[in-house]
Formats: sequence, C-alpha cells, structure tokens
Amino acid sequence: MPKYFIALLFALTSLHVYGQQKVIDAIFSNALASEVAYENLRILCETTEGRISGTPEAAAAVEFTRQIMASMDLDSVYLQEVWVPRWVRGDKEVARIVSTQIGSVDLTAVALGRSVGTGPDGLSAKVIEVMHLSDLEELGREGIEGKIVFFNRPVDQAHYNTFEAYSGAVDQRFHGPAEAARLGAVGAVIRSVTTAYHDHAHTGVTRLNEDGPNIPAIAVSPVGADKLSSRLKHDPDLKFYIRTTSHQLPDVISYNVIGEIRGSTYPDQIITVGGHLDSWDNSPGAHDDGAGCMQSIDVLRIFIEEGIHPKRTVRAVMFMDEEISQRGGNKYADLAHERGEKHYFAIESDRGAFTPRGFSIDSNQERLAAIQSLKPYFTPYGIHEFFSGGSGVDIAPLKNYFDMALVGLVTDSQRYFDLHHSSNDTFDQVNRREMQLGTAAMAAIIYLVDHLDILE
Amino acid sequence: MPKYFIALLFALTSLHVYGQQKVIDAIFSNALASEVAYENLRILCETTEGRISGTPEAAAAVEFTRQIMASMDLDSVYLQEVWVPRWVRGDKEVARIVSTQIGSVDLTAVALGRSVGTGPDGLSAKVIEVMHLSDLEELGREGIEGKIVFFNRPVDQAHYNTFEAYSGAVDQRFHGPAEAARLGAVGAVIRSVTTAYHDHAHTGVTRLNEDGPNIPAIAVSPVGADKLSSRLKHDPDLKFYIRTTSHQLPDVISYNVIGEIRGSTYPDQIITVGGHLDSWDNSPGAHDDGAGCMQSIDVLRIFIEEGIHPKRTVRAVMFMDEEISQRGGNKYADLAHERGEKHYFAIESDRGAFTPRGFSIDSNQERLAAIQSLKPYFTPYGIHEFFSGGSGVDIAPLKNYFDMALVGLVTDSQRYFDLHHSSNDTFDQVNRREMQLGTAAMAAIIYLVDHLDILE
Repeated sequence: MPKYFIALLFALTSLHVYGQQKVIDAIFSNALASEVAYENLRILCETTEGRISGTPEAAAAVEFTRQIMASMDLDSVYLQEVWVPRWVRGDKEVARIVSTQIGSVDLTAVALGRSVGTGPDGLSAKVIEVMHLSDLEELGREGIEGKIVFFNRPVDQAHYNTFEAYSGAVDQRFHGPAEAARLGAVGAVIRSVTTAYHDHAHTGVTRLNEDGPNIPAIAVSPVGADKLSSRLKHDPDLKFYIRTTSHQLPDVISYNVIGEIRGSTYPDQIITVGGHLDSWDNSPGAHDDGAGCMQSIDVLRIFIEEGIHPKRTVRAVMFMDEEISQRGGNKYADLAHERGEKHYFAIESDRGAFTPRGFSIDSNQERLAAIQSLKPYFTPYGIHEFFSGGSGVDIAPLKNYFDMALVGLVTDSQRYFDLHHSSNDTFDQVNRREMQLGTAAMAAIIYLVDHLDILE
Repeated sequence: MPKYFIALLFALTSLHVYGQQKVIDAIFSNALASEVAYENLRILCETTEGRISGTPEAAAAVEFTRQIMASMDLDSVYLQEVWVPRWVRGDKEVARIVSTQIGSVDLTAVALGRSVGTGPDGLSAKVIEVMHLSDLEELGREGIEGKIVFFNRPVDQAHYNTFEAYSGAVDQRFHGPAEAARLGAVGAVIRSVTTAYHDHAHTGVTRLNEDGPNIPAIAVSPVGADKLSSRLKHDPDLKFYIRTTSHQLPDVISYNVIGEIRGSTYPDQIITVGGHLDSWDNSPGAHDDGAGCMQSIDVLRIFIEEGIHPKRTVRAVMFMDEEISQRGGNKYADLAHERGEKHYFAIESDRGAFTPRGFSIDSNQERLAAIQSLKPYFTPYGIHEFFSGGSGVDIAPLKNYFDMALVGLVTDSQRYFDLHHSSNDTFDQVNRREMQLGTAAMAAIIYLVDHLDILE
C-alpha cells in the first residue's frame, strides 16, 4: 500500500474516532448537567417506597414510569403483563432477648423475604449460635431441634470487592433457615449481610424447603447481632422471642414498563437498557434499583436531546419482581422469543448508582474483544474496567434464546452493601453526579455498539 | 546469557513482584478491616469542629492527634511551632433581601475567610448582579460605586472533573470582593462555589487588597443565590442587608504535629505523608481534611501491625493552617532545609476521603516514569490513574529546597464540592471503606518507593 494511502487511512480513522469521541463527550456533558432523572428518582422514592412485587406501591411505580415515558417523545410506550408473587411482611417484627438473669431487650429486625410468620402469638425458644452452615451438620438434630438457630458470621471487610464480601456471607440468609428447619429448628435469626456497622436490619430472599418444613426467619441489625451474641455468653439459657406475621398471598398481575426509540436502519434489532422497578418492602429502593430505572429512561432522553438516531431500536425496560422470583426478566425474554425478536445487545444497571467503574461483559470472545476495544472512549471519564463476567439478573434470561452480548454496569462497590435491602437505601444516599455518570456510561456504550456495528 | 540463567532471572523477578504484591494485599486487607482511623476521625469531628487556625478547637486537634500518635509504638512524636493567623468570624451572619414590593427574606450565608466585617449595624445597599469578573470593568465605577456586587455564576456541572468545575467558578470568591472594592462597591455576595444544589453556604478564603479598600464579603447558598437573583428581576431596586462581625486578631502560636517511624537503612532520608489539621470554622472538616490526617497516622499503624520496617524514616505530618495562609506547610519545608534534612518522597491526602482513583505526580520525568511503573500493583484495587500534576498545598513547599517526587492522592471527585468548606462536611458523609482504601493506597505507594529504591 502506498505510504500516502496509509496516511490517508490513518487520518480518516482518526477523524472517525474524533467524531465519536465528540458524541461521547456530549452524552457525558448532557447527563452531568441534567436534573431530570435525579428528580424523578426523588419522586419515585417518596411516593412508591416499599414497592415489592404485587403491592399498591409497585403498581404506582408502574404507572409513574409509564407516565414519565409517555411524556417523552418516544416511538412507543407499553406495559408487558407479568404474574408476580405477593409476599406480605405483615406487622412490624418483634425480636426480643428475654433473660431472667440479665433482662430483656428488643433488637432491630426484619423478616426475610418469602419467610413464613410465627402467627400472632410469636414463638420463644433457646438460641444456638453458629458461624457456618457446616456447623449445623456437626450439631445434628439433637443440638438444633426445638431451638432458634442464630447465624452470626459477619461479612469479611478485608475484601476490596464488596460483592465478594457479600457472597461470602449471604449463604446464611439464603440457605440457613431452610437447612436449620430440616434439622428441627423452630426459627432462624441471621446477622444482616452488610458492610456497615449500624442498627439497620437488611432483608433479602430466603430459600424455602419445597415440601417443608419452613420456619420463621428474620435478620437482625449488626448492632443487634452483637447484643445477642454477647448476652448468650452471659446467659446461654436465655430465650429469644420472635413475632412475625409474614405470609404469602396468591399471585397477582403486574407489569414490565417499556419505552422505545425505533431504530432508523435495523428497527427489528433490539437493544435493551434496564433496571428493576420493584424494591424491598422495607426500603425506598433508591440505589436498588430505582436509580437503575431512572438511568435507563434517561438514556432515551439523552439520545433525543442530543439528536442521536440509533440504527437499532433502543428499549428502556423497567423489570418487575427482581427481588423475589425474577418473573419480569423471564417474561421479557420469553416474549421476545415468542415474538421472533432479534436481540443485539442488553445492559442493566443494578449495582447501585455510584460512580461507574466499568462493564461486566457476558458474551463470546469476539464480542468481548469488540466491547473491550471501546475502552479508550471511556478512560477520560474514569471508566477502566472491561472484564468478562455476569451482566444482570433481569437481562440474563435473554441468554436462553439469543446469541448476543449482555453487559452489567459496574459501579464503585464500597457503599452498596451499607444500604442494600434496608430502610437506609434512601434518596439522599444517591449523589446526582455519580448517578448521571452511570447514565452516560450506558448511553455511550449503546451509542458505540450500535453506531459501529461491532457486535454482529 | 544462557537460557537457564534468563529463566532463573525471570523466576526471581516474578517471585520478587509476587512478594511485593503480597505485602500490598496485606496493606489493603489491614486497612479495610480496621476501624481505628475512622473512629478517630469521628472523635476529631465531634470534639474539634470548626478548628480554623488559632482557635481553641485547633489547639484541641493538635493535642488529640499528638495523643493518638503518642499511644502508638512510634520512634518519636513531636510538635513544630508555627505562628498562624487568627481570623474570627464573629456573630452568625445576617444576609437579608429587603424589598418594600415583595417583602423580606433571610438567606443562608457565611462570611468569606479573611473578609472584613460590616460592624455591628450592618450595611444596606442596592445590588448589582454579575456573572464574570470582566463584567466589573464594563460596568465601571459608575455602575458599581455604593452597591453590593452579587457574583452569581454557578459551577459548570458538565465537567467530569469537579476540580475543573470548581476552578472555573472560584475566581468570583477569591478575586471578586477585592476587585469590586477597587471600583467602589460597599459589599460583595458570592454564590457558593459548589456542585450541590442545597441551602448550605460554602466559605473559603478571599483575597484582600493589601493597601485597601476591603469590603465585607459573604457567600450565600445556591438556593439563596437563586432567591436573590429572581427577586432582583421583580424588584431591581431592592436593598440587601448584610451584617458580619468578622475580624482579624494578632497571629498566635500553633503547631504541626509529627510522628515518625525511624528508617532501618537510611534513617536520614525522609518520607512525608500528611494532611492538614485545620478546617473551616463553619465545618466539622471531616473530608477536608480531618480524614487526610487520620489516614496519614493510619499509614504508620499499618506499617507497625504488618511488620513493615521502612528503610527510610516515614513521617506522618498534620499540617496547621492550610486554609488561610499555608503557614504549616511552609514552616515544615523551611525547617527541613535549615536542618539539612534529605527528603526522598512526600504524599498528601487533601481531596476528600473518597474511593482512591490514582496519584497526581509532581516530579521529573525519571521519577514520574518510576512511579508509573508501579501501576500493576494498584489496578487490582481500582486505582488506574498515574499522571503528572500538582501534589498538595502543604507538601508543595518542599519543592523550594529538594529535588524529589511529590504526590497527591487522587480520589473520586464527584461528591467533594457538595460539602467542601461547608457545615455539610460532616463525619457521616465519610464512608469507612472508601477512606481506608485511600489509607491503603498511600501506605502501599510509600512501601513500594521505599522498598524498591526507585526514586534515587
């Protein structure tokens, strides 16, 4: 090839890259200067707090996000019907240490998601403290029967990645009660799975034994767990009293909420950007995952305001029921398959609206490499991490049907498990600029994979 | 060179790198699992709030940090005498819109650092709103004389880097009042230089005209600034009433507080790690810069606990009077020179105790490259940015005397100017894990540059 031709090619490529970087810069500037998504998140948190699937709050969140998108200049806005579970916490939980020797004290507690209640009278029993699920086998039925099992292993703070720290302790919450029940326990108490040391209790779903037995199960705050542990040392015969009235009602109808910008060139190819609309019923669900929903809608706003006409159809999806049984995500994938849709790319934001640090990419090697080649566009915005990993719970079912790239927005993980699944996950814990950098990161990667056609 | 020799060399190098990475991992794990620095920061914020130079609170902070270090197993702990300015805010400021047409309203305000007071009766004048310093020249003396100048340009939120956004607006606070005074203004009101939209007012130092005239100068909250601006549109003749009793007292004696681990091999070579102990008098100074002080002390704790014996002497320095006239930093450098010390490396933490993102390196090209070569040790902890730039206000005077590398710890900048120089810079805004990642980053870079002798 003649040298001048190479030089020309190089110049054209540079111009091309330069042109794209200008779009990326415009996306970031727009996001950082905008209050829209943040103010909508404020309203969502204030008016639909506790929007676990099947509740009136969840229905209000469906209608609120539908209205937001209906007021935008989108090509279509619609609902996707989903049957969802309807688990009800009932009365405020009571969790009380009762000791004739050292007195009684109430602990801050919250029933675990899906757990059964004690009934109105509550239950009272001796407590056996364990640190690992394997302790149950060692203790055997004789050590456990008739007792409340207290799982008290804290998260290991020494991990840099708090998702790893969380994963290292959440077995207690997810499997602990079901395992204890099989050995005759009458109740289970879990130390909240959190990186914070405070008096908030953190819930989350617990596994049920399909054919029983199942027992009441609560999480106590870290402060409460330490109280219980230290009093057990003084009085091993103390009783613990639990009262929860949680119960399961029949499934009800709810919805995924969807808004679309129709693609200019390949309208039948779909790009999904989403978060989940439900939150735990004890929480405003600001980071988990009200923010992910508002960011997804804001990607569409930015495209419209910046005059970006995507080649492919870009859909913002508010998934329903991530927290309990992921019905919304599964329904979305099933319908996409049934309707013969083509899915090109999907990205989810469900790790908290903190400063974005990168993308976790679930795809084949070619698409992984293609996405990793985009890194230079993002490093000016502090986004450096492009690695192979899981995407998001709501978009993952698309893998069942489509050969495509799925991506999870990776954010700074240090604060997430301080507030995750607790009443502490409030709007004021979200920083507008951090949230909007995440919005921009998603808009930018969607623009690039669409504009450059690199995932075909 | 025989092949087996190369292989051996490679194996030894890998082992060497592996050994250092193990130390780095131990430093990060120790920092993340420790509560010590965070709890000391809590006490500092609770007991010495408003510790601007010369105050009893600043003296208490000196004694508190001296006691912390005296209780550790350090080789020496001592104070370094510094004469510091003693500026006093006086009574709570009054900033009032007075309009016969649309009523009166008080705004949240704070006097600018070093500014002169109005005297007990306050002052009242018409307001002229400007957006740029250059507007003053255009208006001229006839447009300004006898008026209060209201500088109302917000920070540009579209910047990714909030330090750039801040730099683009802070000229109003630093130069505005002095420039307005020269054209006959009787007072100056500044829109708080902040990325937040809230009702906190943010102070900071303002320049004085050395031979006068100088006028009272206050910052109003962003909410207050918008109120003033919109009411001026309705009633351009409204009066603004300011009352501040701020004033300057004679200089007083204060101290830098220093703790040392003596070097095992080159004890006469000094490594400095520091933050500044003073804070603005309207603030607990949690991020700015109580955290930087506690991180610096914690570097020494980690070295002791992990059995790291540095070759060179490592000094934690709490600098006094960063906010007003940087006397502590200048004194530290002057004394180092007078005493014929050798300074090898210095690092400062004064950008808020947020997740660390990298290092800003002020040095010659060789040392810059040497420090950049350490990046692979840090990327597992999300630290990617190793760039040439300024270090910190307190350590920078060392450059006057020493040919050395100076480094500033770079942290996530998104939240810093939400709270900077305001009553909002409270302990609860600091996340323990984010702070401790910064501590670990400083301990790790000190360990590496010392152990590997790469800055000679």
